[in-house]
Amino acid sequence: MTLADKLNLAIRNVADYPQPGILFKDITPVFANPGLLHEVVSALVDEYKSQKIDAIVGVEARGFIVAPILAYELNCRFIPVRKKGKLPYETITEDYALEYGKATVEMHNDAIQPGWRVLVHDDLLATGGTAGAAANLVKKLEGEIVGFSFLINLSFLPGEQNLLKRFGVKPHYIISY
Amino acid sequence: MTLADKLNLAIRNVADYPQPGILFKDITPVFANPGLLHEVVSALVDEYKSQKIDAIVGVEARGFIVAPILAYELNCRFIPVRKKGKLPYETITEDYALEYGKATVEMHNDAIQPGWRVLVHDDLLATGGTAGAAANLVKKLEGEIVGFSFLINLSFLPGEQNLLKRFGVKPHYIISY
Repeated sequence: MTLADKLNLAIRNVADYPQPGILFKDITPVFANPGLLHEVVSALVDEYKSQKIDAIVGVEARGFIVAPILAYELNCRFIPVRKKGKLPYETITEDYALEYGKATVEMHNDAIQPGWRVLVHDDLLATGGTAGAAANLVKKLEGEIVGFSFLINLSFLPGEQNLLKRFGVKPHYIISY
Repeated sequence: MTLADKLNLAIRNVADYPQPGILFKDITPVFANPGLLHEVVSALVDEYKSQKIDAIVGVEARGFIVAPILAYELNCRFIPVRKKGKLPYETITEDYALEYGKATVEMHNDAIQPGWRVLVHDDLLATGGTAGAAANLVKKLEGEIVGFSFLINLSFLPGEQNLLKRFGVKPHYIISY
């Protein structure tokens, strides 16, 4: 059985969350399965260990779970990107479009040094809006985006194409729906 | 130099966050220092490796950073406790008092099995309100609280005494201010 098959078995489909008509992919059972989590991290380590990653950016809040473990295993920095107002020190901010309205994410203004090779991680790739905003924060601080990593890709949405077009990097994910 | 001394050097004091008069302890520099993060995790592993921990509960969002790494290293489950409305599946909820008003945290209602030995982790112990609410969620599902773990304790607040009194467990922390 492939890792994607194992993830698919573990992920729980929750109907009508966060709104009617959405079938939400609940990844909390993955974190309640230590053997599976080790397999996921091992696959990500294999993907990135030769990439000389300086820092992994994790997007609040589900992106905070796997990104710190991967940073720990790759012996590189973990940098949080958070929603507006949640980081205590001086920040840079990036707005991005939602289906209706906009959202804002922030990063500390000293979080990335120029030239650092940076991986952006989040749990799920939908349209790529959040990950793209996080990557723009990295680029504002003159970091280099060397990868995007997700557990799940929603292939009926254009996130993969959007990130490839905007940043010239093909996103990596373990399972696609 | 002790680990507490190293943490103290890494932690950044931010004045007047989140409100005037508060000197906030910013731990993001700890996560940007891979060697120090490894020392922190190593100290926590030493503290808990003989405790037969079944699950580590991490409190959103800063508690999501170290708790998953520790669960990964101890080969046990990571269980998220989140703010109201953020978990997709069926939840149990717990209200707790803030200085003005109240807050609510949630856990999936199948996250803990009866008898599991559970460690609650968050980044900082102040009054113990959030960690105590997370522990109450564990107890509602008949889990056993075997420890509370924090990076930082604020000793001018009664969190340590509150948790000891309520749960009969002395909280563990690396540095106290």
